Amino acid sequence: MKQYYLDVYKNKNILITGGLGFIGSTIANRLAGTAKEITLVDSLIPQYGGNLFNIDAIQDKVNVNIADVRDEASMNVLVKNKHYLFNMAGTLSHIDSMTDPYTDLEINCRSQLTILEACRKNNRDIKIVLAGTRGEYGRIEKTPVDESHPLLPTDVNGINKIAGGLYHLVYNNAYGIRSASIRLTNTYGPRHQMRHSKQGYLNWFLRLAMENKEITIYDNGTAKRDFIYVDDAVEAFLRVCASDDTNGQYYNLGSGRAVSILESAEAVIEVAGSGKIKHVEYPKDKKAIEIGDFIADYSKIKNTVGWEPETSFKDGLKKTYEFYKKYKEYYF
Amino acid sequence: MKQYYLDVYKNKNILITGGLGFIGSTIANRLAGTAKEITLVDSLIPQYGGNLFNIDAIQDKVNVNIADVRDEASMNVLVKNKHYLFNMAGTLSHIDSMTDPYTDLEINCRSQLTILEACRKNNRDIKIVLAGTRGEYGRIEKTPVDESHPLLPTDVNGINKIAGGLYHLVYNNAYGIRSASIRLTNTYGPRHQMRHSKQGYLNWFLRLAMENKEITIYDNGTAKRDFIYVDDAVEAFLRVCASDDTNGQYYNLGSGRAVSILESAEAVIEVAGSGKIKHVEYPKDKKAIEIGDFIADYSKIKNTVGWEPETSFKDGLKKTYEFYKKYKEYYF
Repeated sequence: MKQYYLDVYKNKNILITGGLGFIGSTIANRLAGTAKEITLVDSLIPQYGGNLFNIDAIQDKVNVNIADVRDEASMNVLVKNKHYLFNMAGTLSHIDSMTDPYTDLEINCRSQLTILEACRKNNRDIKIVLAGTRGEYGRIEKTPVDESHPLLPTDVNGINKIAGGLYHLVYNNAYGIRSASIRLTNTYGPRHQMRHSKQGYLNWFLRLAMENKEITIYDNGTAKRDFIYVDDAVEAFLRVCASDDTNGQYYNLGSGRAVSILESAEAVIEVAGSGKIKHVEYPKDKKAIEIGDFIADYSKIKNTVGWEPETSFKDGLKKTYEFYKKYKEYYF
Repeated sequence: MKQYYLDVYKNKNILITGGLGFIGSTIANRLAGTAKEITLVDSLIPQYGGNLFNIDAIQDKVNVNIADVRDEASMNVLVKNKHYLFNMAGTLSHIDSMTDPYTDLEINCRSQLTILEACRKNNRDIKIVLAGTRGEYGRIEKTPVDESHPLLPTDVNGINKIAGGLYHLVYNNAYGIRSASIRLTNTYGPRHQMRHSKQGYLNWFLRLAMENKEITIYDNGTAKRDFIYVDDAVEAFLRVCASDDTNGQYYNLGSGRAVSILESAEAVIEVAGSGKIKHVEYPKDKKAIEIGDFIADYSKIKNTVGWEPETSFKDGLKKTYEFYKKYKEYYF
């Protein structure tokens, strides 16, 4: 199966927005050597996830194009002559989206229109896979969550991500610009930014543990999350992009095993061999946008393109720890 | 029931965005004399629905404030000291939203953030009722459509309306700014703009019939629509706004009787005593965003605030015809 679907990328031109970021750069590392041409678009806005070290091993095999996905003129040029677009640019901070909703709107909602309009005007044959988020489901009504779960976002980021995903659906249906969206749950692993807790709390926990600092847990940390190791997420993007059975569809990823926030902190401390846990009261602003337990039903992607998670939580954490131990200077 | 809920508006300050438009001005006409102060915000952008004649009978009882709901500074001032906000500003053109998606984004999505941020910063005690649209449901999977129907918009307007509604939900839940949304289906009646077919096709059919012109029907016109007379829609807004049982909720309105597009044209011609029907092939751009039959399940609003439609399709059309016969010069 793997060999079969990877063949589609041979001699193809790939565009990756957010290409210097966590998942985007991991896709680039995976396709380097297979694809004909890989172009990474990233604005390297300091507080976001882009990092040139993420492509250190493949810098001769990719084109880095510094640009903002909100910029219409740049995107009009960049989508030309591309076969596949991994659309990974965006932000995920729930709390920032509440304090500065306009910026979240620009980056996660308006930018998606810019990208799709660029494709409509310049390249309708492209296939796009969008990085969506479980935040689109918002407050969870019942688990496991499948793709028909109601959309009850608890913050502005979730809403803008819904709109971004729906734009892709509409452009797929109205213009035949083939698109699919993967609603990512907590993804962790190498190449993730490690400078703040606003995107991806598990990686942040790992940094705190590696520096033998306190990991703050709100209340008892019983809320469950579904963690996906980055290589598994990348595998999903590659499979969904390679198949036309996915056009116009949303997909959840899941690990098959939910872990509480407290358990995840304990696991991180065990892997790092340092760090400690501190329980504090749930901050009011964060409590207001809490979603409850999230456990994904990933049978749709499994049935369509055969994707399944392959990396256990323990193995994933170990690989992540080893990566940052080695390359700490580029991320901490 | 009616008397009871109208009492809540006594001595209260009312703000209506899109207040010179079709439904907004009809709310103003209804509350004039009951409310303490009514402020109508409208930008009177020519191609939209605002018309000063809509408040001709009540101009001494309302404050007209020309401003754009996208303007943060104006909205920050205007929401102050208001008890109720009927949030009616917006556009509904499905086809315009596909040819100029950015303008649709600004007016139907970003403006809602502007209004809600103004309330968050200046008046968290306000109650808001938003004019949503059945376009949020998009392509209909099963009828009658209740509020849990999947959101599968067929055009950019539907997406931006979804986002606008969800912002209200998030601000209701996170900040306690009480909000509800009514997802309007085809609303018709007096005070609707009559200059083009882009908002409200039934009123446009009536104009064509009154001028003895051809009414164009795509294919056989068998798709069904659920028509609500404007006074019934206004009644729904007043009831939903008056009750705190509606906070954080969406509501459908329905007539209880779906009418095909062909039947609606025939009814218009009968009422007007002129006009004729012309069948043409379905234009490709419009076919691409067609939604199928729409028939609403309105049991949720009925059970919560006792709303039911009171005006038959025939009576509503007659009243509409009489209005435009009398005031043609202000609308045609």
